[in-house]
Amino acid sequence: MNLIVFGYFAAFFTAVSFLPQAIKTVRTRETAGLSLLTYLFLFLGSLSWFIYGLYLTDYPLMVTNSLTTVFTGIILYLIFSERNNKYN
Amino acid sequence: MNLIVFGYFAAFFTAVSFLPQAIKTVRTRETAGLSLLTYLFLFLGSLSWFIYGLYLTDYPLMVTNSLTTVFTGIILYLIFSERNNKYN
Repeated sequence: MNLIVFGYFAAFFTAVSFLPQAIKTVRTRETAGLSLLTYLFLFLGSLSWFIYGLYLTDYPLMVTNSLTTVFTGIILYLIFSERNNKYN
Repeated sequence: MNLIVFGYFAAFFTAVSFLPQAIKTVRTRETAGLSLLTYLFLFLGSLSWFIYGLYLTDYPLMVTNSLTTVFTGIILYLIFSERNNKYN
């Protein structure tokens, strides 16, 4: 098996990974177990990858990270709105 | 400002993103709000990026994704051990 397929697996898993968490958190509003700092890093990281993708004109990078930016942005917003001033 | 710096921001945020969540979940064992499916995708995605990095001999890809594979693996293990048969 050519190891290049792992690049496609990786892109697929990364692109869809935060959709179940976003759906779950929108439905339940259960944010106590979620790390605010993790979602802040993930949101800024995804946004940075997206901008880097624009710079390189790399469409896979733009597509996957526009999805993760939106999903992690929703989760981050819900964590902020459910609790204030608890940085962990 | 050269947009290439966003590549470095992105790699940094991605590498450290799951550390606060892993620490929080190890300490509190509070996994009710965490999506099992999300952490399964993240673990498989990170592992795939790592293997793809080996294939390309790309050290940034290997370094960042060995970290995220370990952190998401710990979180995934804790979700599994705290509850069984609840796929969401």
